[in-house]
Amino acid sequence: MAMQQNGSASDIHKHNDRSASNHPITTNGSEEVEHQQTGRFTFSAEPNLEDIRRMQAEFTDERNWNQFHQPRNLLLALVGEVGEVSELFQWRGEVAEGLPDWTEPEREHLAQELSDVLIYLVELAEKCNVDLPRAVLRKMALNRLKYPANKVHGSAKKYTEYKD
Amino acid sequence: MAMQQNGSASDIHKHNDRSASNHPITTNGSEEVEHQQTGRFTFSAEPNLEDIRRMQAEFTDERNWNQFHQPRNLLLALVGEVGEVSELFQWRGEVAEGLPDWTEPEREHLAQELSDVLIYLVELAEKCNVDLPRAVLRKMALNRLKYPANKVHGSAKKYTEYKD
Amino acid sequence: MAMQQNGSASDIHKHNDRSASNHPITTNGSEEVEHQQTGRFTFSAEPNLEDIRRMQAEFTDERNWNQFHQPRNLLLALVGEVGEVSELFQWRGEVAEGLPDWTEPEREHLAQELSDVLIYLVELAEKCNVDLPRAVLRKMALNRLKYPANKVHGSAKKYTEYKD
Amino acid sequence: MAMQQNGSASDIHKHNDRSASNHPITTNGSEEVEHQQTGRFTFSAEPNLEDIRRMQAEFTDERNWNQFHQPRNLLLALVGEVGEVSELFQWRGEVAEGLPDWTEPEREHLAQELSDVLIYLVELAEKCNVDLPRAVLRKMALNRLKYPANKVHGSAKKYTEYKD
Repeated sequence: MAMQQNGSASDIHKHNDRSASNHPITTNGSEEVEHQQTGRFTFSAEPNLEDIRRMQAEFTDERNWNQFHQPRNLLLALVGEVGEVSELFQWRGEVAEGLPDWTEPEREHLAQELSDVLIYLVELAEKCNVDLPRAVLRKMALNRLKYPANKVHGSAKKYTEYKD
Repeated sequence: MAMQQNGSASDIHKHNDRSASNHPITTNGSEEVEHQQTGRFTFSAEPNLEDIRRMQAEFTDERNWNQFHQPRNLLLALVGEVGEVSELFQWRGEVAEGLPDWTEPEREHLAQELSDVLIYLVELAEKCNVDLPRAVLRKMALNRLKYPANKVHGSAKKYTEYKD
Repeated sequence: MAMQQNGSASDIHKHNDRSASNHPITTNGSEEVEHQQTGRFTFSAEPNLEDIRRMQAEFTDERNWNQFHQPRNLLLALVGEVGEVSELFQWRGEVAEGLPDWTEPEREHLAQELSDVLIYLVELAEKCNVDLPRAVLRKMALNRLKYPANKVHGSAKKYTEYKD
Repeated sequence: MAMQQNGSASDIHKHNDRSASNHPITTNGSEEVEHQQTGRFTFSAEPNLEDIRRMQAEFTDERNWNQFHQPRNLLLALVGEVGEVSELFQWRGEVAEGLPDWTEPEREHLAQELSDVLIYLVELAEKCNVDLPRAVLRKMALNRLKYPANKVHGSAKKYTEYKD
């Protein structure tokens, strides 16, 4: 599945080039994890979140739209975009990883709507003075403490208990 | 406004190291835009979206939670987190840029909820084989074509017409 | 404002005919409340929630669409419609009660989107075997216990504490 | 399925007193529809939407909370409650009609969250001067015109085309 996707978009994003074992932020190098991640879909390294923030800020400035981009306006715009993502999934029943039954136009539509969510999320964080990349690091550290791998491993029951 | 915000939280998130003028993806270098962006809040360069994707993949793998992280499950989790962000804004009326009246614990709470939205958005994109950083570039190019700066500049009426 | 609305649609919904003081489910008959509610916008008595449920069930049955109307599909459809409501409010800043600056087509658009939210909410409740009207009575009783009027009256601080 | 569900919860919510065939708003009386609806879960007749509106208005007035219940505040509260409903469905994969695998506390939790969505939806409509019951009638008439039963009957393809 991932291979097929890779093939159709190989110029844009390269799979399996992570070299997770020597990445400085890698938190786990067990054999099992390595095996599970083999063939996993990966993102391009750029643009990063600050690139996206800056490009969207330029876009907004050029149009003199900062007057409309107050925090709650951006939040409602974000909700609207999440609604558009939901519409793409709403009548399909369960959807398998990799979206095997989706046409290429449907995939591109989804890519655009997910992008809209990210763009408004980034701008909302900026207007709220939240350094989103750093905040994610802190939140992930909290999540690791909250859901210790050895306690919750492979248990739906524990998973639900912990996550609810 | 932005200056004041930065000033009041300079120890936490002052990252005015953008050097926007020589950034390779900068799309506009006009004097006006430069002036508007002076003192604007910026993000840290790291982690980038692929770092976040990989860290979350490791987190999920370590707990054997991929069985729960199917696309629609992740989408509903994303909706849940957007709901939690909304709860932070729901009884406040209009909220000014920089959140001048928010306490530090409220800001940190918001940072955590925005992070949760981003984490699930990234994982949803991964499980849908969407290269989110590249998709954002394509979407922003489309937005520039759809809303030409010279046609929509500074007009709320045109803005609404174009955006609705 | 309410009067104007009333005037333009007087055949459809009658304002101020509540006779709250002798309604069997009235929970409070104090002078203050009576005064506050004078002129308040009211709904038509019909259709009730069961009428709406039945009409939507007929609509779905006639089209053989029950196969698509599983609980999670309906929930995502609901999220999509909430997104459409949000889009109507997203670039406006604060909106005053009664929507004084909205055009008639904008009001009708909002009425349609709010209706879509209600239709999917009703169908979701039906498919989950939740007797929505009765559930609301139980929830309102819980809310009265949780937020005692004499403890939280007129205090934003207490309000936030209690509601968060 | 519906029969079984009704059977397993007959003490809580069996309201098979619809008499659909002689209801004044019934839009379809074909044998097929009658057959499909046999045993379908139904709602109680009361409270109706105006009852709910009035009770919530009293609740808000008693607490002097109208100052907080402006349209956009209520909309964000609605989004928050939809998020809470989503959290109940997020890690479950596909959920069958009637929620056969849910415990009674889980069902009651869902009933409460769906109620919260309805309460805020009703109050939002009131504060926007939208007569929600009448608006739903208009929207359903539009839906019948938009999706003619004879054209879209039993076709997922047509369904998606029409609904997207």
